[in-house]
Amino acid sequence: MLAALNSQISTLPYGQRPPELYDPIRYLMQLGGKRMRPLFTLLSSSMFTDHWQPFVRPAIAVEVFHNFTLMHDDIMDAAPLRRGQPTVHVKWNPNVAILSGDVMLVCAYQLLADIAPGQLTTVLKKFNRCAAEVCEGQQLDMNFETRTDVSEADYLDMIRLKTAVLLGFSLEFGGILAGADEKNTRLLYEAGESIGIGFQLKDDLLDVFGDQAKFGKQVGGDIIANKKTFLLIEALQLAGGEEGRQLDKWLQAKNFDPQEKVRAVTDIYNSLGIHEITEAKMNEYFALGLTCLSQISVPAERKAPLVEFVEKLIYREN
Amino acid sequence: MLAALNSQISTLPYGQRPPELYDPIRYLMQLGGKRMRPLFTLLSSSMFTDHWQPFVRPAIAVEVFHNFTLMHDDIMDAAPLRRGQPTVHVKWNPNVAILSGDVMLVCAYQLLADIAPGQLTTVLKKFNRCAAEVCEGQQLDMNFETRTDVSEADYLDMIRLKTAVLLGFSLEFGGILAGADEKNTRLLYEAGESIGIGFQLKDDLLDVFGDQAKFGKQVGGDIIANKKTFLLIEALQLAGGEEGRQLDKWLQAKNFDPQEKVRAVTDIYNSLGIHEITEAKMNEYFALGLTCLSQISVPAERKAPLVEFVEKLIYREN
Repeated sequence: MLAALNSQISTLPYGQRPPELYDPIRYLMQLGGKRMRPLFTLLSSSMFTDHWQPFVRPAIAVEVFHNFTLMHDDIMDAAPLRRGQPTVHVKWNPNVAILSGDVMLVCAYQLLADIAPGQLTTVLKKFNRCAAEVCEGQQLDMNFETRTDVSEADYLDMIRLKTAVLLGFSLEFGGILAGADEKNTRLLYEAGESIGIGFQLKDDLLDVFGDQAKFGKQVGGDIIANKKTFLLIEALQLAGGEEGRQLDKWLQAKNFDPQEKVRAVTDIYNSLGIHEITEAKMNEYFALGLTCLSQISVPAERKAPLVEFVEKLIYREN
Repeated sequence: MLAALNSQISTLPYGQRPPELYDPIRYLMQLGGKRMRPLFTLLSSSMFTDHWQPFVRPAIAVEVFHNFTLMHDDIMDAAPLRRGQPTVHVKWNPNVAILSGDVMLVCAYQLLADIAPGQLTTVLKKFNRCAAEVCEGQQLDMNFETRTDVSEADYLDMIRLKTAVLLGFSLEFGGILAGADEKNTRLLYEAGESIGIGFQLKDDLLDVFGDQAKFGKQVGGDIIANKKTFLLIEALQLAGGEEGRQLDKWLQAKNFDPQEKVRAVTDIYNSLGIHEITEAKMNEYFALGLTCLSQISVPAERKAPLVEFVEKLIYREN
């Protein structure tokens, strides 16, 4: 399936002219990534039919949409690198990244337009809702940067919107394409949303406790940037006395040795048991998601490829 | 029709939370404007049916899309004002304008999602194509800023993409909604595209030769900004000798009295007959568009409201 996706992605007819508009799309789409979202769609569809090949092209809509959000988020976050390569607004300029992202969102809709007319209204409404929610999540995430009162519930709601609803849609979309009934497509959506929240908690964990040799990014990046992750939000709630003062000191610090900050904040996390608390919450969401998958009314062997793929992602180390 | 549109626009359920995402949409949509594009859609549909009321909501998709392009274009052009009020990226900030614009594009698709399922595939594909072309036109327009070799054909192609295709789609969309046949919808598209090119040429003309008391914006704004309009492109081709040197001098000038520059460049335009050349080209496109409308196979009295509306816009002074 991954080969079919990558082959189709490499031949998508994005348009040619002007090159500033379409080259960044090709560039970003070819930087790689796990193609998790369209694989979710195809693995989901293959629970209900062996003929998932016609869904490769529509499935790419969720990958193009995801990459559109990356292109625009990278401008807003002033991120210099994406998958180790210069971001579009750096390699070209911010205006190119805005406009090329816009046309990328249109491309996602163009890929949806080819699905069976009888399914299009349903899919379009669900996709629109999901797309708006992803934007809401990004805005909330930006708002969190300057807020000091973000609760656990606020955070979980933000990552649900920013990250998880697209995984929910990706699974649901596969079910709809393959003609699954409403009960099953709802279970697929809920599975994807719960698993997606778990994945983000896992990302938060790996950023602090990952193995640098396997992680890919710099371990501790979130700590250095004071990123409001699940870990930091829990620590801010739990830390009292001297630990609370130490944590505040590092959050306020303007000039510091990055490695020293990472070490000190990680020590605070350790003494508060943040790793265990986060892992427990993460596993709660994974269990919820896997329960939803188990309730889908198809034989277990048809679910096996999707469940195995999800489990591989649950146990990943990068 | 305008009242029906404005009433529907004021009650659109854009979403509420977070406010930074949705307030800018309400703000921009309420700044007014002629609502030309959705009126095109409704007037076009009313050629074929008396029951245009159900099309008010889908027609608003083209207005929301148009305002989305304004929100993003204003960031790219670093424009401080829109319809005399602060632009979104100034009133809020550029990140808000990027993300709020994104969700606005999604809103446009959400408004399309409610049309009859049997028409959705056709409409979605045509709208996607139009949306991508509008982005292409904006990128070409930005590229023109630093190019010195823009030909008349380049310019006409750019304004076709940036401005005219959306008017083409707006008319075509009304026809499709009302069940017009393919020959008529094609004529509607072509009419809108030609009239749209004419409107942009008229904008270029008014910016230099408009009556300040009626124009609304500052007459001469394009000259002050060295904007590559049809007038400047023609003048650059026609001006030789002393006039050419004078024109180049004003285009290179860094410190100048704006009024003096406007007067001097307008004098050059006058001595080259640029007003007449532009007007002739504009009228050519208006004639093409009106011919297409005349070929649509419905009785003349059914076309009258649309033709009158177009003629009012052809003779407008702002």
